[in-house]
Amino acid sequence: MEGTLLSELVMEILIPLVAICGIAFSLLQWFIVSQVKMTSIAVHHPDPHHTHSDRLIEEGEDMNDHGVVARCAEIQTAISEGATSFLFTEYKFAGLFMSGFAVLIFLFLGSVEGFSTKEQPCTYKKDTYCKPALANAVFSTVAFILGAATSLFSGFFGMKIATYANARTTLEARKGVGKAFITAFRSGAVMGFLLASSGLLVLYITILLFKLYYGDDWEGLFEAITGYGLGGSSMALFGRVGGGIYTKAADVGADLVGKVEKNIPEDDPRNPAVIADNVGDNVGDIAGMGSDLFGSYAESSCAALVVASISSFGINHDLTAMCFPLLISSMGIIVCLITTLFATDFFEIKEEKEIEPALKKQLIISTVLMTIGIAIITWIALPSSFTIFNFGEQKIVKNWQLFFCVAIGLWAGLIIGFVTEYYTSNAYSPVQDVADSCRTGAATNVIFGLALGYKSVIIPIFAIAVSIYVSFSLAAMYGVAVAALGMLSTIATGLAIDAYGPISDNAGGIAEMACMSHRIRERTDALDAAGNTTAAIGKGFAIGSAALVSLALFGAFVSRAAITTVDVLTPEVIIGLLIGAMLPYWFSAMTMKSVGSAALKMVEEVRRQFNTIPGLMEGTSKPDYATCVKISTDASIKEMIPPGALVMLTPLIVGIFFGVDTLAGVLAGALVSGVQIAISASNSGGAWDNAKKYIEAGTSRHAKELGPKGSEPHKAAVIGDTIGDPLKDTSGPSLNILIKLMAVESLVFAPFFAAHGGLLFKLF
Amino acid sequence: MEGTLLSELVMEILIPLVAICGIAFSLLQWFIVSQVKMTSIAVHHPDPHHTHSDRLIEEGEDMNDHGVVARCAEIQTAISEGATSFLFTEYKFAGLFMSGFAVLIFLFLGSVEGFSTKEQPCTYKKDTYCKPALANAVFSTVAFILGAATSLFSGFFGMKIATYANARTTLEARKGVGKAFITAFRSGAVMGFLLASSGLLVLYITILLFKLYYGDDWEGLFEAITGYGLGGSSMALFGRVGGGIYTKAADVGADLVGKVEKNIPEDDPRNPAVIADNVGDNVGDIAGMGSDLFGSYAESSCAALVVASISSFGINHDLTAMCFPLLISSMGIIVCLITTLFATDFFEIKEEKEIEPALKKQLIISTVLMTIGIAIITWIALPSSFTIFNFGEQKIVKNWQLFFCVAIGLWAGLIIGFVTEYYTSNAYSPVQDVADSCRTGAATNVIFGLALGYKSVIIPIFAIAVSIYVSFSLAAMYGVAVAALGMLSTIATGLAIDAYGPISDNAGGIAEMACMSHRIRERTDALDAAGNTTAAIGKGFAIGSAALVSLALFGAFVSRAAITTVDVLTPEVIIGLLIGAMLPYWFSAMTMKSVGSAALKMVEEVRRQFNTIPGLMEGTSKPDYATCVKISTDASIKEMIPPGALVMLTPLIVGIFFGVDTLAGVLAGALVSGVQIAISASNSGGAWDNAKKYIEAGTSRHAKELGPKGSEPHKAAVIGDTIGDPLKDTSGPSLNILIKLMAVESLVFAPFFAAHGGLLFKLF
Repeated sequence: MEGTLLSELVMEILIPLVAICGIAFSLLQWFIVSQVKMTSIAVHHPDPHHTHSDRLIEEGEDMNDHGVVARCAEIQTAISEGATSFLFTEYKFAGLFMSGFAVLIFLFLGSVEGFSTKEQPCTYKKDTYCKPALANAVFSTVAFILGAATSLFSGFFGMKIATYANARTTLEARKGVGKAFITAFRSGAVMGFLLASSGLLVLYITILLFKLYYGDDWEGLFEAITGYGLGGSSMALFGRVGGGIYTKAADVGADLVGKVEKNIPEDDPRNPAVIADNVGDNVGDIAGMGSDLFGSYAESSCAALVVASISSFGINHDLTAMCFPLLISSMGIIVCLITTLFATDFFEIKEEKEIEPALKKQLIISTVLMTIGIAIITWIALPSSFTIFNFGEQKIVKNWQLFFCVAIGLWAGLIIGFVTEYYTSNAYSPVQDVADSCRTGAATNVIFGLALGYKSVIIPIFAIAVSIYVSFSLAAMYGVAVAALGMLSTIATGLAIDAYGPISDNAGGIAEMACMSHRIRERTDALDAAGNTTAAIGKGFAIGSAALVSLALFGAFVSRAAITTVDVLTPEVIIGLLIGAMLPYWFSAMTMKSVGSAALKMVEEVRRQFNTIPGLMEGTSKPDYATCVKISTDASIKEMIPPGALVMLTPLIVGIFFGVDTLAGVLAGALVSGVQIAISASNSGGAWDNAKKYIEAGTSRHAKELGPKGSEPHKAAVIGDTIGDPLKDTSGPSLNILIKLMAVESLVFAPFFAAHGGLLFKLF
Repeated sequence: MEGTLLSELVMEILIPLVAICGIAFSLLQWFIVSQVKMTSIAVHHPDPHHTHSDRLIEEGEDMNDHGVVARCAEIQTAISEGATSFLFTEYKFAGLFMSGFAVLIFLFLGSVEGFSTKEQPCTYKKDTYCKPALANAVFSTVAFILGAATSLFSGFFGMKIATYANARTTLEARKGVGKAFITAFRSGAVMGFLLASSGLLVLYITILLFKLYYGDDWEGLFEAITGYGLGGSSMALFGRVGGGIYTKAADVGADLVGKVEKNIPEDDPRNPAVIADNVGDNVGDIAGMGSDLFGSYAESSCAALVVASISSFGINHDLTAMCFPLLISSMGIIVCLITTLFATDFFEIKEEKEIEPALKKQLIISTVLMTIGIAIITWIALPSSFTIFNFGEQKIVKNWQLFFCVAIGLWAGLIIGFVTEYYTSNAYSPVQDVADSCRTGAATNVIFGLALGYKSVIIPIFAIAVSIYVSFSLAAMYGVAVAALGMLSTIATGLAIDAYGPISDNAGGIAEMACMSHRIRERTDALDAAGNTTAAIGKGFAIGSAALVSLALFGAFVSRAAITTVDVLTPEVIIGLLIGAMLPYWFSAMTMKSVGSAALKMVEEVRRQFNTIPGLMEGTSKPDYATCVKISTDASIKEMIPPGALVMLTPLIVGIFFGVDTLAGVLAGALVSGVQIAISASNSGGAWDNAKKYIEAGTSRHAKELGPKGSEPHKAAVIGDTIGDPLKDTSGPSLNILIKLMAVESLVFAPFFAAHGGLLFKLF
C-alpha cells in the first residue's frame, strides 16, 4: 500500500488552520451583526455605506422612534436574560449529571481489567501489547468531559448571538426585508461556524494530546476518543429533550390561555408567558438543535476513527488517512464559508418571495461544492487502496469507493431535505390537502395530518437505505460512518439556515411586542414563514444523519464488543429487536406527557397572573415574565428526568443483565423504529403548522375559501397545530437523541459489557 | 426415542370427533337463538320455560307491541341484506383475486424445477428422494384454495348469525339484561365454534388426503400444507382491510353529517347511512376479525407443522406427535365448550354491572382450564424427548419444555388482554386522564390519547418478548409456533366474546331505530359498553398472536429458504430491516387515507339525500339506505386495492429482486415495527372512544363535571373519538394482516425465491 498525496505535515497544519479560520469567520459575522446599533440609527450612524442604505428605505416609520428602539432593547434583554438563566440552570444539572456519569465511565471501564495498570494484549492484534484498560477509563472520561464542554460552549454562544441578533433583525426590518434577512442569516452563521470549527479543533487537539501518551497504540487511542462523542451526545440530551420540553411548555401554555381563553394575539406583551415562549425558541431550536447536530458530528467522527484505527490506516499508522474524517469536516468548513458569501454578499434579497429560494440555494450550492471537495480530499488524503475492518476480517477498499460513500450521504441529506420541504411547505399539495380537510373539522385534519406524516417517511427511508447499502457494501461500517459525515459535512450552512428560523421568529415576536407597524410585522412574518420550512428541512436532516450515525456507532460497538454476527434467528437478538423497536414509543409517550404536564403548570401561572394582577388585560400594568420563565425552566428540568433516565439506563441495564447480543438487537430495533416515528412526527407537526399558516395567509383562492382567521376550518387547523407542537419540537427530534445516545453509550461501555455483561442469561 | 401414550388410532378418531362436536355445539347455539321469535312473544310462546321467564320480567312495555317487533324485523332484514350484499361483492373480487393468485402460486412454485415431474433430492435429507416441485405447486394451490374457502364460509356464517341475532337481542332486552346478554353471547359462540372447528376439520382432512399422494414424504406434504395458511390469510386481507374500510367509511360518514351537521342522534333512522353503519359492524368486526383470527390460527398450525416435518416427529413419522398442533386446537375446543356453559348455563346475569365481569371470567376460566388441557396433551401426545429443527441443526427438546412453550403463549395472551383493558376501559385512570384532558380542548385530548397509545405498548411487548424468549430458547421456531397456537387455543371463546360486541352494538342501534323505550336502550347500551372493552381486548389478542405467528412463519420461511443466519451486520439485512420497519407506516397512511376518501363519498351521498328527499328530516319519508350501502361497498373494495397491493407485492418484489436475505430483514423489520403501531393505534382509538362514553355516561362526579353531552369537553372528546375510529378499526388491525400475510407469502414462495431470487444483487 502506497502513501497519500497530502503529507502528514501539511495535514497537521491544514486542519487547525481551517478550524481557526472558521472561528474567525464566525466572529467576523458577529462583529458585522453588532454594527446594527440598538439605538435610532439615522441619528447615530456616521458610516457612509449605512447612510447610503438609509436613502433606499421606502418608509420612514419607526425609524427615529426612540421609544420603539428602547422597547426592542428592553424585550431583547428580557429574552436574553431568560435564556441565559435557563441555560445556567440546565448546565448546573447537566454538570451534576456529567460529573456522576464521568465517575461511572471511569469505574466501569477501569473495572474491565480490575483497575490494573499493566499493559494488556490488544483486542485485534493479540501478539502486541496495548495500554491498560485503566488508561482507557481515564482518557475516555477526559474525552467525555471535553465533548460535553465543547457542546456546552457552542450551544451557549449560539444562544447568546441569537438573543443578541433577534432585536437587531427587527430593527433592520425597518430598512427592508433584505437587510433583516442578512442580519438573521449572519447570526445563524455565527452559530454554525463556531460549532463546526470548535468541534473540529477540540477533537483534533484531543487526538494530538492523547497521542502523547498512547504513542503507537492507536487502537487504544481512538477507543478513548469515543468518549468525545458520548460527551457531545449527553449534552444533546439536555439540549434537545430539556430544551424541547421548555419551548413547547411555554408555547402551548401561552397559546392555551392567551389565544384560546383571553383571545389576545400571539406574542402579545400582555401575555405573561410571552417572554418564556420567545426564550423557548432560542433554547429549544438553537441550543437544542446545535447540541443535537454537534453530537451527530462528534459521534460520526468517533465512529469512523475507531473503525479506522483497526483498519489499515491504524495498523500502518498512516496519520493523514486516519484523519480523513477530520479532513472532510475541514473541507466542509471551507465550502460552507464560500456558500455563505452567496447569501450575504454575492446576491441581495429585495423581495419577500426571494427568501425561501435563497435559503434553498444555500443547501444546493453547499452540496454541489462539497461533492467536489470530497473528491479532492479522497484523492489527496487516501492511498489508492487500503483495508477496512469488517466484523472480524479486513476488506480491501479503493479510495474512489470512499468518495461514493461520503458523497451518497451528502446527497441523501439533500434529498431528505427536499422531501421534507415537499411534505411540510404549504406551496405543495400535501399541506394544501391537509388544510382542505379542515372543512370537515379537526378530526379529519388530524387524520390527514397523521397520514401525511406516515407517508412522508417513504422516500427518506429509501434514501437512507440506499446510502447504507452503498456505503456498507463498499467500505463496511467505515463507509456508513463517513456517509454520515458526508451528510453532516455542510453542517455550518445547515445550522446557519436552521438558527435563522428561531431568530426570525423572535424578531417577529419583538416587532409585535414593541407595537411596531403592520408592515414591519409582515416582513418579519415572511422571514419567519421561510424559517418554518427550513426548520422542517433541518429536522429531516438531523434525523437522517442520526440514523446513519447510529448505525455507524452500532457497527463500532459491535466491533468493539467482538461480536461478529447479530443473528435475528437467536432469541436474544429477536427480543432485543422487538423491545428496541418499542423504546421510541415509550420515550415519546414520556416526552409528550412531559410537555403536557409542564404546559399545564404554565397555564395555571398565566391564569393566576391574569386573575390577580389588576390592569393586566388593559395593558396598564406589566405581567411578571420572570415567574413564567422560572416555571418553564424548573418544569423542563424536572420533566426531562424520566425520558433521560430511559435513554441512559437502557443500554446499561440491557448490557449488564442481558449481554451484548440483546443490546445489539435493542440498538438495531430502536434505530429502525425510531427513525420512522421521528420523521413522521416532525412532518405531521410541520404540515399542521403550515396548513394553519396557509389558511391564515389566504394567498390563493382555495386558502381564502377556508379562512379567514376565526373561521371553522381555521379553528380546526389551530387544533392540528397545537397537537403538532410537541410532536415536531419535542418528541420527534428527541428521538434522534434516543437512538444516537444509546448507541454511543453502548460503544463506550462495550469492553465492560463484553467482560462482565449478560448476568441474567449466565444465571439460567 | 420412545412412542407416545396416545395411540395413532385414537388420535385419528379424536381430532375429527372434537371438530364435529364443536360444529354441533355451534349449531345448537344457533338453534337456541332461533327460538327467540321475531314476533310478540307473550302471544306466540307456548314453551313453559319461557312462560316462567316471562313472569320475571319487570316491565311490560313494548312487549306486545306488534309494531315494534315488525320494525325490528324490518331493520334486521335491511342490515342482513346489506351485509350479504357487501360480502357477495367482496367475495366476487376476492374470488377473482384468489384465482389469479392461485395461478401465480402454481406457476412460481412449479417453475422452481422447471415444471419437472421427476422426484428430486429432499432439501434436508439429500440422500432421499422427495416429490417434485410440481407436486408442491399443485398441492400448495389446492391447500391455498381450501384455506381461503374455509375462511370465507366461517366468516359468512358468522356474519349471518350476527345479523340474525342482533334484533333478537334487542327483543330479549325487553325481558331483562340477562336474557339479552345470553342471546348475544350464544350468537357469538356460533361464530367462535364454527370457525375453530371447521378450521381444524378442514386442515385435518386436507392432511389426510394429501398424505394419500405424499406417503412418507412428510417434508413435501407439510410444505404444501402451508398454502392453507396463505389462503386463510389472503381472505383476511379482504375481511380486515376491506371490511375495516367499509365499517369506518360508513361510521365516520354517518357521524359527520348526522351528528355534526344535522344534530340528530347516533343510529337515528332518518340518517341514510345508518343501515350501512350497522352493516359495517358486522362485516368489519365480525367477518373481519373472524378471518383475521382464522388466518392466525391456520398460519400458526402450518408454521408448526412445517417445522415439525423436518424435526424428529417428521423424520420418525410419528403421526401423533406430528399432529400435536391439531391436538392442542382440539383440546381448545373442548375447553371453550365447557367455558361457554359458565356464561350461558351455570350462572345468570341479573344486573348490568355483571356483564363485563362475566365476559372477563370467560377469559380467565378458559385460560386456567386450557393450562391443564395443554399439560394433558403434552403428556399423552408427545414422546418424552425429541428433536426440533433449529436453522441447520437438530435441538433436543423434552415434552415438558413444550408444555411451557404453549402455556406461556396462552398466558401472555391473557396478560395482553388485561393490559389492553386497563388502558381502554373507562373504569381506570388512563382513560379518565384522557377524558380530563378534554377540559383544555381537543388538542390536549389528542396529545394525551396518542401518549396513552404509545405507553400501552410497553407491557404487551414485554409479554410477547418473554414468550418469544422462553419458547424460542426451549424449542426454537417450533416453540414460537406452538406459543402462538397456545395464545389462539381458546379462539372459540375469544371470538365469542369478540362477536358479542358488534351484535350488542347492532342491538342498540335497532332499539334506537325501532324507537324503543329509554330503558331498553339503557340495557343495550350496557351490553354495548362491555362489548367495547372486550373488542379492545380482542384486538390486543389478535395483534399479540399475529406477532408470534409472524415470527413463527418467519422462522419457517428462513428454514425453507435454507438461510442459517439473518445477520444484521450485512447491508442486505439492515436495509431490509429499515425498509420493513417503514412498511407499516406506508400501509397505515394508505388505509387511513382510504377511510378518509370513502367517508367523503358517504358524506356527499348523505348530504345529497338530506337535500333532495323531501320530508326526510321530519321523518315523513324514508331515506334510501341501499345507495349508502352500495357506496360503502364499492368504495371499500376500490380503496383496499393500494394497501392490498402493497402487502401482496412487497414480498414478491423484494424476493425476486433483492433475494431472501433482504426479504428476511424486511419481514423482521415489519414485524417489530408493525406490532407497536398496531397496539398503539388500537388502544389510542379505544381510549378516545371510552373517554367520550365516560363523559356521556356521567356516572362519577368527575365525569359529571366534564359533561353533559354537548359541553365543550364533550365536543373535544367527540373529535378524539372520530380520529380514533380509523385508527382502531381500520389501520391498526389491518397491520396484523400486513405482518402475517407478508410472512406466509414469503414462506410459500420461499423455494422460488431461493432458486431464482435476488436478481438485482446478482446483476451488480
